[in-house]
Amino acid sequence: MRNYLIEFLGTLFLVLIIGLSNNPVAIGFGLTVLVYMGAHISGAHYNPVVTIAFLIKKEINLYDAFFYILFQILGSTFSALILFFLKGDVMEIMPNLSSSVFQILASEFLFTFLLVFVILNVAIHPNLKGNSFYGFAIGLTVMAGAFSVGPISGAAFNPAVSIGPTLSHFIIGEGISKYYLWYYLVGPIAGSLLATLSFIYLVKR
Amino acid sequence: MRNYLIEFLGTLFLVLIIGLSNNPVAIGFGLTVLVYMGAHISGAHYNPVVTIAFLIKKEINLYDAFFYILFQILGSTFSALILFFLKGDVMEIMPNLSSSVFQILASEFLFTFLLVFVILNVAIHPNLKGNSFYGFAIGLTVMAGAFSVGPISGAAFNPAVSIGPTLSHFIIGEGISKYYLWYYLVGPIAGSLLATLSFIYLVKR
Amino acid sequence: MRNYLIEFLGTLFLVLIIGLSNNPVAIGFGLTVLVYMGAHISGAHYNPVVTIAFLIKKEINLYDAFFYILFQILGSTFSALILFFLKGDVMEIMPNLSSSVFQILASEFLFTFLLVFVILNVAIHPNLKGNSFYGFAIGLTVMAGAFSVGPISGAAFNPAVSIGPTLSHFIIGEGISKYYLWYYLVGPIAGSLLATLSFIYLVKR
Amino acid sequence: MRNYLIEFLGTLFLVLIIGLSNNPVAIGFGLTVLVYMGAHISGAHYNPVVTIAFLIKKEINLYDAFFYILFQILGSTFSALILFFLKGDVMEIMPNLSSSVFQILASEFLFTFLLVFVILNVAIHPNLKGNSFYGFAIGLTVMAGAFSVGPISGAAFNPAVSIGPTLSHFIIGEGISKYYLWYYLVGPIAGSLLATLSFIYLVKR
Repeated sequence: MRNYLIEFLGTLFLVLIIGLSNNPVAIGFGLTVLVYMGAHISGAHYNPVVTIAFLIKKEINLYDAFFYILFQILGSTFSALILFFLKGDVMEIMPNLSSSVFQILASEFLFTFLLVFVILNVAIHPNLKGNSFYGFAIGLTVMAGAFSVGPISGAAFNPAVSIGPTLSHFIIGEGISKYYLWYYLVGPIAGSLLATLSFIYLVKR
Repeated sequence: MRNYLIEFLGTLFLVLIIGLSNNPVAIGFGLTVLVYMGAHISGAHYNPVVTIAFLIKKEINLYDAFFYILFQILGSTFSALILFFLKGDVMEIMPNLSSSVFQILASEFLFTFLLVFVILNVAIHPNLKGNSFYGFAIGLTVMAGAFSVGPISGAAFNPAVSIGPTLSHFIIGEGISKYYLWYYLVGPIAGSLLATLSFIYLVKR
Repeated sequence: MRNYLIEFLGTLFLVLIIGLSNNPVAIGFGLTVLVYMGAHISGAHYNPVVTIAFLIKKEINLYDAFFYILFQILGSTFSALILFFLKGDVMEIMPNLSSSVFQILASEFLFTFLLVFVILNVAIHPNLKGNSFYGFAIGLTVMAGAFSVGPISGAAFNPAVSIGPTLSHFIIGEGISKYYLWYYLVGPIAGSLLATLSFIYLVKR
Repeated sequence: MRNYLIEFLGTLFLVLIIGLSNNPVAIGFGLTVLVYMGAHISGAHYNPVVTIAFLIKKEINLYDAFFYILFQILGSTFSALILFFLKGDVMEIMPNLSSSVFQILASEFLFTFLLVFVILNVAIHPNLKGNSFYGFAIGLTVMAGAFSVGPISGAAFNPAVSIGPTLSHFIIGEGISKYYLWYYLVGPIAGSLLATLSFIYLVKR
């Protein structure tokens, strides 16, 4: 339960910082801090596709993975409700409307691939055992990604970041362009799967 | 006495950087440096609600806690006087006047909760014993918080940061909207208490 | 082969972040992350003149050095094609047209000298064995260099960063001012050679 | 001789980054890198008032201290000549002309005090022996100081940063407001002396 609550808290604050600041520097360093806060307890996934990668790598079992993802989505949804209270308008992760579907999907795919590949290396590769830079490596990947493809895809790299605000809109009862959600499912899931396979077959024999 | 002087110095420079730069990057990295400067001597609280959290966790006794908070407030007050000398106008931490009382309090509550929860983890959780990232974890939490809720509450997360400038105005004799002060007492104290309880009951059994 | 693929991936994402963000903060922290991702596998060169420096220092053999450089150029070229797909226009590293040839070459020379000198120290000097800051030292050198001489030379410090986009233009069939390329060969190669000699004769006896 | 050349190189690049970028982020992270590059060889002073502090603490002898300062000034002067070549105009560290003499001196005094106090702690305090954050602590102090008092004093905190450009103007033959120089001697020297005394009598018994 303790781990699930850390996943809830970490995802809550990640989405809060994204929604309030909309600033890659704040998001990247904020995620760095959240990783240092929670990695020693829950592993600090805060992202369903990270949990899926760890599930494939057998670093987490199916039961825990289910509850990790559930609490990530609960954290993100609760965060979106807090954001509505703090700012008075609804949060929505959305792409640049002048970018094509393929450009948006490729952006999410590429930087989620990098994010999960970096996480697997700094979190479980034996060469980096005991390293102290894991929080920065993870947070700064998201920072670089947000600077790079933020203007194309909105830079979620994380289904929970999109699912939470979408669910919150159902609760609040305001309209939201729900059809953006699938970008942040398909792109990140594909990126995470390729990263995990690359890690298994290329990096760590 | 040595510890008290470090608390005085650290809070003095923290308030100086806040008042002079008004920039989350400078404040976050400045606090990082001040933590690395003083944590090995006094623990580098520089914040009454951090001292209260350590008091509850019995990491500091009541006598020392009293003098820590006293020297933090003295440092902040002296800093506000230096600021008046350097810039010629009075410093005031104030919220966005178009935000509601509840939005302001919630902002201070949320990020002080995060700040104290992060500090307790990086400073005293046995899993992170001997870590070298504690200064960054603390400074970057304030950076992310300042980017996130600075436009709502002014982003103090620290009663001393508000008390010092308020006291300095009594000394200087200029008017100040004293009624903002309570935001930076109620929000941070509540956030710190919940973080300490969460740490005790959820994280560390 | 594993090492070559890491060089491919690292250079690909480095060029992607440069081309998409055009922002020294994103580039510096992005390179930091890529170094932490790959240094424990391939050494994380991502730059032909770094590979040349390690070849001179006999940290890599000629056979591997050849394939490192080949895969760096392949990664950069593939990255430039992805950039064309994502943004719809061709990427080109180019200098400030009002700067003189000597100013451009000196800019690339100076900061590639610093980059390679820093890399040799943090990667192979015995005094810094086991340090955890190598990724930051390398990434932040490029960040400081990009802030400093970006407005003069375009701040490549890396032949692959220029070769890849140039090759991609042949593939795409669009015109590019190919004659800029030699700046990013001559300046960085000269800087790297002087840094390697300085390291051998001055620093490490 | 090796140590002197590292002091020459480090001060050269520090002044180059200051003069070219005029950006606290580039300066702070650039200094971080230069410290990680040279601290394991020469101690990475790059600043006469740091050398004076280490001389008082008997970490360096008088003979070496003289040559450290000489090579710092040579590095800074050579850097200012490179800057003249790269940009075509003369570099000058100068204060805000609407600030008073006392405001300028106090600004340089305060942040040089902090800089030297931080350096003494991270470099020689036994509690922090073997720490890996020394480069960040030093670089980020200058970053926070440049953000804070850059608009008042110009933020040198280092006599070499002012002496070098002044000497370079004699060589180039262009006019420069030489009378600013004394600010960057008096403020930093006083700040360094107080920091050293504070360290000796307050921190380390």
